[in-house]
Amino acid sequence: MFSINENYLKLPGSYLFSTIAKKVAAYQSENPEAKVIRLGIGDVTLPLAPAVIKALHGAVDEMGAAETFKGYAPDLGYEFLRSTIAENDYRARGVQIDIDEIFVSDGAKSDSGNIGDIFGQNNKIAVCDPVYPVYVDTNVMAGRSGLYDPDRGLFDGIIYMPCTAENNFIPELPAEKPDIIYLCFPNNPTGTTIPKAELQKWVDYALQIGALIIYDAAYEAYIAEDDVAHTIYECEGAKKCAIELRSFSKNAGFTGTRLGFTVVPKDLKCGDVSLNSLWARRHGTKFNGAPYIVQAAGAAVYSEEGKKQTKEQIAYYMNNAKVIREGLADAGFEVYGGVNAPYIWMKTPQGMSSWDFFDYLLGKVQVVGTPGSGFGPHGEGYFRLTAFGSAQSTLEAVGRIRNL
Amino acid sequence: MFSINENYLKLPGSYLFSTIAKKVAAYQSENPEAKVIRLGIGDVTLPLAPAVIKALHGAVDEMGAAETFKGYAPDLGYEFLRSTIAENDYRARGVQIDIDEIFVSDGAKSDSGNIGDIFGQNNKIAVCDPVYPVYVDTNVMAGRSGLYDPDRGLFDGIIYMPCTAENNFIPELPAEKPDIIYLCFPNNPTGTTIPKAELQKWVDYALQIGALIIYDAAYEAYIAEDDVAHTIYECEGAKKCAIELRSFSKNAGFTGTRLGFTVVPKDLKCGDVSLNSLWARRHGTKFNGAPYIVQAAGAAVYSEEGKKQTKEQIAYYMNNAKVIREGLADAGFEVYGGVNAPYIWMKTPQGMSSWDFFDYLLGKVQVVGTPGSGFGPHGEGYFRLTAFGSAQSTLEAVGRIRNL
Repeated sequence: MFSINENYLKLPGSYLFSTIAKKVAAYQSENPEAKVIRLGIGDVTLPLAPAVIKALHGAVDEMGAAETFKGYAPDLGYEFLRSTIAENDYRARGVQIDIDEIFVSDGAKSDSGNIGDIFGQNNKIAVCDPVYPVYVDTNVMAGRSGLYDPDRGLFDGIIYMPCTAENNFIPELPAEKPDIIYLCFPNNPTGTTIPKAELQKWVDYALQIGALIIYDAAYEAYIAEDDVAHTIYECEGAKKCAIELRSFSKNAGFTGTRLGFTVVPKDLKCGDVSLNSLWARRHGTKFNGAPYIVQAAGAAVYSEEGKKQTKEQIAYYMNNAKVIREGLADAGFEVYGGVNAPYIWMKTPQGMSSWDFFDYLLGKVQVVGTPGSGFGPHGEGYFRLTAFGSAQSTLEAVGRIRNL
Repeated sequence: MFSINENYLKLPGSYLFSTIAKKVAAYQSENPEAKVIRLGIGDVTLPLAPAVIKALHGAVDEMGAAETFKGYAPDLGYEFLRSTIAENDYRARGVQIDIDEIFVSDGAKSDSGNIGDIFGQNNKIAVCDPVYPVYVDTNVMAGRSGLYDPDRGLFDGIIYMPCTAENNFIPELPAEKPDIIYLCFPNNPTGTTIPKAELQKWVDYALQIGALIIYDAAYEAYIAEDDVAHTIYECEGAKKCAIELRSFSKNAGFTGTRLGFTVVPKDLKCGDVSLNSLWARRHGTKFNGAPYIVQAAGAAVYSEEGKKQTKEQIAYYMNNAKVIREGLADAGFEVYGGVNAPYIWMKTPQGMSSWDFFDYLLGKVQVVGTPGSGFGPHGEGYFRLTAFGSAQSTLEAVGRIRNL
């Protein structure tokens, strides 16, 4: 008789954003006239940049002609894309990453879940709290946790590092020694980040205790301040202790186009086993490449036109962030983030719970945000708003919330 | 100190097709003038059908305009695609599959590896021998095997079901009871298939012993004979014991475009746990959808024009299969398959080993095939040729092999 992976049964309820989607759909079907503004899920709204559209059309034409048709992609991704990444995201910042240290994928969500495949089941995981749910959920699924404790709102056996207004949303080195540490800066969900000097401390710590850092840099393009690292490899020694996840979703609007990459340096070893080889094996065996047309589109993001146009998109979103941040602060709300990231993390008013505030906002002014507690117990009492709406709907949403 | 997944170390060498690619690249770089013909990896060569290209261009235009731009896709895939699949691949064959039993993915290779996530580690796996390496390798990675036994060429703890000329490449029910059975018909690599009545026996067997069947139907579109099931759900009771994997790679040339789907019926349970819910959780947590433009392209495959054009592509490849099959048989080679599948499975001449014949063919006549032993010990002494080349290069390759 076959058996299931019992670890799945530890997960309470459904994936956070599926729950929100269902709640909003239910509300919308009961109130078909309501003009709901969605600042919940971190999904972009601007169309793909003209340079990207042009590259897509060009690649589609290639797929339609025998001489230029592309079948299976190279295991690690097309070299034209990986060399562009190595040049623009790394060499330009003084970091040397070889093209066989870059693995092109269908996005950072898949990678952040799948990367766990190459690690043993007994690794002790540390995550920030609040945190992007995928890090925790996928480790629970892989058996790297105990049971869910509904009273504490967290899983036994996982180290949670509180990030709250009290510590400026910068985690402290944990009391208990972790084996694998997930860090995401600029941070989802808090919209805050960490100075480079602070990040160096984490690298030093990981090297000292033999831990691995999984560094999610999906929001790198939003960094506005000078003392923030754009890649963890700007920190000394990081190539010996860190894997970096990158995404095209937020810098170029690829949420529905799907492209990302993971950097696994060849210096990264466990004993004499190269993690680069392990991930290459995983990548080559359980994945068959991102579509050629999408990889061609990804390369166009790095063209002169592409850079200019995606920079404008980011400026557009960051103006929304400013509108939300300043508008809500002006109305007396306590707000964080939104300077180096497209997220605003606000305190719920009058000590409301995060989900109560979610229901209240949706029911009262038809604005959808994300309950902070959905990201972990230390997110309770907070609420996330995203800057990915249109300028007009963002203004409108801020106006509605101000007049609550 | 973090630790790796030690199961990866059980895997000998690299993924089969990576090894072949490296060997061919080495040969080609030493012999830059050589006109190598690749009938090795099962990769298509015809460009995407005009209806698909048109849909891609249309979807790209949608992604370039604010009003029609698409961000994150629905968890299970766009409904327009899933309802078309339910109608054309199932209802049209008298099988009722609901749209929430269909999970759109980036391809059957990912799905056939990832599906293992929802099962316990202690399941006993049964595979055909020879077999598509992904089934075995991903289960080894997940810890569902003992060590590799280099003398026998297989992993301890996995049930191998020999498929050879002696049993018409139809596996016999295994002596030892399996928990999860992988079946692929029409079969990769042997190019042969199984009559519907024989498949029903497997469904009955699985139901009787409480086993699960993972049914890979990636080559369904190549079925030419009447008594072959196009989906396992044509067999009575299959919804209670089988998951079906489907691909757009071989029926519509999407190897470099990436699209597939998996059917997990709601009747499929382990105790009172629904596998459909488990897979929905996995799909929603570790994956973020196939690109909108690719899903739109997938739907176009089912349009009137799309059906007509992809049928012509399949006829083209199957004519190649005929050319190989008949040409080699006529020259005295022993050949199988190629009637309901785009693969020809030949006996190596003069008792050569599969890899010796690979090297011999490459070095002597610059034709690349796939060594049968790469698919398992009972593939030793066999060799796979694919029908996915151009008509001209296929003719040329057959001519070269005949004149060996």
